[in-house]
Order: sequence, then structure tokens, then C-alpha cells
Amino acid sequence: MRRALRLARNGLGKTAPNPVVGAVLTKNGRLIGKGYHKNFGGPHAEVFALNEAGREAEGAVLYVTLEPCTHYGKTPPCVDRIISHGLKRVVIAAKDPNPLVDGKGIEKLRSAGIEVAVGVEGARARRLNEAFFKYIKTGLPFVTLKLAQTLDGKIAAPNGDSRWISGEASRKLVHRWRAQADAVLAGIGTVLQDDPELTVRLVRGRNPKRIVLDPDLQIPVSAKLVSDSGAENTIIFTASRNRQKIEALEKRNVKLEHCEKEPSGFFDLKKIAKRLPGLNILSVLVEGGSGVFSSFLRQGFWDRLYVFQAPLILGSGIGPFDGIKKEKLNEAFRLERVSLKRVGQDVLFKFEPLRADRTLDF
Amino acid sequence: MRRALRLARNGLGKTAPNPVVGAVLTKNGRLIGKGYHKNFGGPHAEVFALNEAGREAEGAVLYVTLEPCTHYGKTPPCVDRIISHGLKRVVIAAKDPNPLVDGKGIEKLRSAGIEVAVGVEGARARRLNEAFFKYIKTGLPFVTLKLAQTLDGKIAAPNGDSRWISGEASRKLVHRWRAQADAVLAGIGTVLQDDPELTVRLVRGRNPKRIVLDPDLQIPVSAKLVSDSGAENTIIFTASRNRQKIEALEKRNVKLEHCEKEPSGFFDLKKIAKRLPGLNILSVLVEGGSGVFSSFLRQGFWDRLYVFQAPLILGSGIGPFDGIKKEKLNEAFRLERVSLKRVGQDVLFKFEPLRADRTLDF
Repeated sequence: MRRALRLARNGLGKTAPNPVVGAVLTKNGRLIGKGYHKNFGGPHAEVFALNEAGREAEGAVLYVTLEPCTHYGKTPPCVDRIISHGLKRVVIAAKDPNPLVDGKGIEKLRSAGIEVAVGVEGARARRLNEAFFKYIKTGLPFVTLKLAQTLDGKIAAPNGDSRWISGEASRKLVHRWRAQADAVLAGIGTVLQDDPELTVRLVRGRNPKRIVLDPDLQIPVSAKLVSDSGAENTIIFTASRNRQKIEALEKRNVKLEHCEKEPSGFFDLKKIAKRLPGLNILSVLVEGGSGVFSSFLRQGFWDRLYVFQAPLILGSGIGPFDGIKKEKLNEAFRLERVSLKRVGQDVLFKFEPLRADRTLDF
Repeated sequence: MRRALRLARNGLGKTAPNPVVGAVLTKNGRLIGKGYHKNFGGPHAEVFALNEAGREAEGAVLYVTLEPCTHYGKTPPCVDRIISHGLKRVVIAAKDPNPLVDGKGIEKLRSAGIEVAVGVEGARARRLNEAFFKYIKTGLPFVTLKLAQTLDGKIAAPNGDSRWISGEASRKLVHRWRAQADAVLAGIGTVLQDDPELTVRLVRGRNPKRIVLDPDLQIPVSAKLVSDSGAENTIIFTASRNRQKIEALEKRNVKLEHCEKEPSGFFDLKKIAKRLPGLNILSVLVEGGSGVFSSFLRQGFWDRLYVFQAPLILGSGIGPFDGIKKEKLNEAFRLERVSLKRVGQDVLFKFEPLRADRTLDF
């Protein structure tokens, strides 16, 4: 099952709104087939494994990280395929929470006389598909906030400069996360200040979609996000109706999504979030800046927070949550620290909402 | 030697300007005497151990954490005592860097025909006496900065409230440090805001001296530091010549030390530091606030920085180094992170100046 989970991981960032799935087929202790769900619309993991094994699959054992499907989607149901191959036993890490499946796959396999075991490495399998599980449960994407700050909590110097607070090892890790996220997200302030690319360069991997929250459509047409070779991967949420600018951007295949501003002048993040699964985005890596981080925190709309902390002191500068104004200590946001580790010269903290505030728990 | 080091540790905070020392006497693998230097002016560790052993000391082995002294100070030289007891062998963790000793003890023991080994657990022994070693080398006390902040780098809420950012386990640790420091130090801003006691309450131990940096003598006569039962342990550095206030404070046995202000309106910390050994203070725990931390950092006058970081986000408030104004990222202070660990819900970072900036290295 560990092997199947590792295989599944290869699909991260490519299968939304499907889950990632890995499968391994063994017979007499020998591996005879393997596969993973490579992309939305493509064959499922089980199919790759069964195809590789061919006739040998009869009497074999299938290890699969998620319950096989029973419904016709972009491909025919895997359960039928498994039954027709005459497998002896199927070991499943996690039940598929999708109401179209949700135990029906297990039931159908058992009715066909196949032994089924469920729950092997279940927590790990659910965590691997945390974005999919959250989406099925809430209809919303999984939101990860990521920031790099100095010891004294500055994400940029007073002159706006933030390159680089964190070390190379930290930045590499961020690029790996980008490669596995369906989308990255930045506020217009960060775009104007840094003109970031938000692509995967320091590691191998495909580029994520790039979301910009830009209520007043201030993004310059010269910004890298809308002028580089990946401009068709950029999605701008805006309340602006500036026809001319919109057309100029659409000519570059940038996707524009209209969304009204709230009285605060910013978006209701939940309204935006609800639209992301329809754009095949189940997981979002939020990269800044201060205003955006503050909004996500204030609106209680986040699932994970990564903080890289560098051994630097600036004294003054821009804080990660400058948009939050808590007057008293007992009004402070309290987080649950899940882990911390050293990454090069930096320390990486991983936080989640306090248990009581979470939408998911494994 | 480990046992001797543990014994020595009991003297921390009580022996300045002497080092802490522990001694263990063994014969045929049996412990026959032990001791530590309990307080400045009192008998040395070796004397306790030799007295406990009495005549049995002949032919015994002495383990001592610091080279025995050869000079008449408040007590006669230990080396003569050791020789007269007819010891066989002396194992020393660290040479005494005090120019009055500095190898002379070892030499004299060897001349008397006693076997001497030096350097066993040497680094540990030097670290235990880091304040003494720094003092001998530089004439200055060892300065430890300690602060508790939120994840986003706030040591107090906008309303000034800082009780409590860190958890109980962290605060207990601070009280243990206070018990082992010769003095704690706070700026007048912190005194006016928090009216702190700066005593040892959460653990057993003696109270340290309490230093207040108060250029304009703003401290209220009602402040706990000058009105509680330990007022005679309080030392105020001030540039004020307000005779009336000075007399009111001196009536309570508060010690006033005059020091001129710099053009900045604050003290030259080095001038103050130089006077501390004369007040039997070799180690100082600096507890705040922002202005004081910033001054110590800016003046490059610190040996260790402890940061307790709580899983809280305030957004706004007071930063630990608000007095520092670095405009650009490449002007930031870079520190050496020595260690990090969890303390209850908090994380404790230990920093030192970058190797190149250090006055001490073990």
C-alpha cells in the first residue's frame, strides 16, 4: 500500500476535480501491475495496473489507495473491470466519500465474491487526498497559506523588498508545493510590488494555475503573470468592468472572472472559493501578501499555514497579518501548531486551525 | 566529572564575581567527599570535599570543574590544601583563565608530584562558567536577551498587554533563568507598563538583583520594584539629579547609579555594562521591552537571545525590535540559530551572534 500511495502522489496537481489514486497488483508476492491516475479524464489507476498484468491478473491481489468507482464518469466503472479480471482480493486504503461511490464499490466487489479489506493506511490516504475530501464534504477548495518572515515577523523590508527572506532550501520546497497545487494565489499588491512568476523553476514539475485577486483590475498588461508564456494559466478575479483592459487581457488568453466587491473594498473569499472547483481547482496555495493573508485569516478561510522563519531581524517592515487589528491579547487568533522543522537556515512551522475550527479531521 | 558539574550548577547566581565550581573526591571508586562553591567569599568547592573526606583524602582522586586557585583571595589557595592532603591525582575540567591562576595551579600540583589531567568535559565546564569566562576575557558581563512573542512577532498587544503571550511552561523556565542570573534588567517603559516584580516565584530559587534603565528617573515610588520586600535588590541607572526622588528611593535601600545619557536620550550600554562586575553582576537577563532589546541589538551588546514564540496572531501590536529601523533586506541583522525546541505550546529559539561577531567561543 505504501508503494500505491507513492504512486498516487505523482498525480498531485493534475487530477482535480478527481482525487489522486495509486494501485499495485501482486500475485504470489510478485508485483505484476501498477499505475496511478495521471490526469483528469484519463484512465484510473486500477486500469493501468490491470492492463499491465493482462491475463495474469486472475487470482491476484489489488492494493488501491481509494475505493474503486462504480459510476460512469469520463471512464467506465473500475469495479466492473476488477470483477471481470477475476481478482481474488482487493485491499483499499480509504473509502471514496463521493456520494456516487461511498461504499458502493466495496459492496459490489464483495457481492461478486471478491475479498475486500478497507482502512489499510487509511489516514495517510485521506491526507493525500485532503483537498478532494474537503471538496466532497464542503464544496470548497483546500486553502494553504504560505509565508516567509524574519524572526521579528516581517515578510518584507520597509522598502517592500522580500527577495529573499527565506533560504534556497525553503524556496525549493515552495516550488515543489506549487507543482502539487492546483493553483497558487496572490493579491494585486504583491503583483504590483514583486511582479512574480509563481511558476515552478527550482524543481521539476508542471506549473499551477495562477489566481490574482484584483478588485480594481490594476494589473499592468506588462506583468509577467499576464505576459509570459503561461498567461493562459492565469485567472484574474475582478470587480472591474473596464472593457478595454479586459479585452487586452483576454487577447492573451488570461481568464477573467467577475466578482463583486464587498463594502470593505475586498472580495468575500467564500464566494470566490465556491467557484474554484468549477475551474478544476481543489487546492490553492496562497502566497501573499499581507492583505490577502489577513483576509483569509479574518474570514476563517484556511486549512493550513506554513511559516518559514529566517534568522534575521529587520525591526520594521511589513508584517504577514498587518490587516488584522486585535486590540487585546485575549482577542488574538490561536492556532494549532502541527509541526516544526529546520529547512536550511530557516525553521518551517506548520499550523492548522484549532481542532474546533476545522472542517476536516483525519 | 558530570557529578562535579551538576554540583557546580547549584552555585549559579550566587558566586559572582567568582566562577561556579564543583568538586568530587573518590578513593578506590568510592565517593568520599563532594562540594561546590556556594557563595562569593565562602569556601571553595575543593575545601568542602576535602573536609568531608578528612584523613581518607590521602591517595584519593579529586575531580574539579575548574583549576584550583593558587592565590590568596577571600580564602587561602586550594592548591596548598590539596597538596597537604596528599592526593594522588587531580582531574580538572577547565583551566582557570583568571590571570592570577591560568595554569599556575596545575603547575604547582605537578611540582608536588600529583598527577594532573586537564580538559575532561572542558567545553561543558567553560559553558557553565560562560559569564565568568567572558568577564575575565573582556571585563564585561554576559548578556542574555529573553522575549516572548506571537507568531507574527508581537511582544504586546496594541493596548500594551503582554500577560501572557507565552505559556506556563515557558514562564517557569524564565523563572529558573532568573534564579541563576546575577541580575535581571528592564527598561523604564516596561516598568511603567507592566509594574513587574522580576522575582522567582514559579520555581524555587533566590531572587536576582533587578536593574532598571531609567534615564529620567520616571519610576513611581509605588512601583513594585522599589516598594516590595526586595527593594534593596533593585539598582536604578539614571541620569537624573532629582534629589528628592533619589532620596525617597534611597530611603527604601534602592541603589541608584548615576550615568549620563547619550545624545540619543538613552544610555551607552557598554558604559553601564562595565560597572556591573563591580556590583557583583557577571550575568544579566534582559527582559524588555522593545526599546531596550533594540538598543542591545543595535549596540551589538548581547551574547544570547532566547525567543519564546506562541501560536498566536495579533496582527498589530508592539514588536520586539521596534526601535530598529532597517530600510533594506540586506541590512537586516543576521543571527546564528543555535537550537530550537518545544516548550508547552510555545517554541523556544536560542540564538547567538554570528560566529564572527562573538566574543566567546567554546
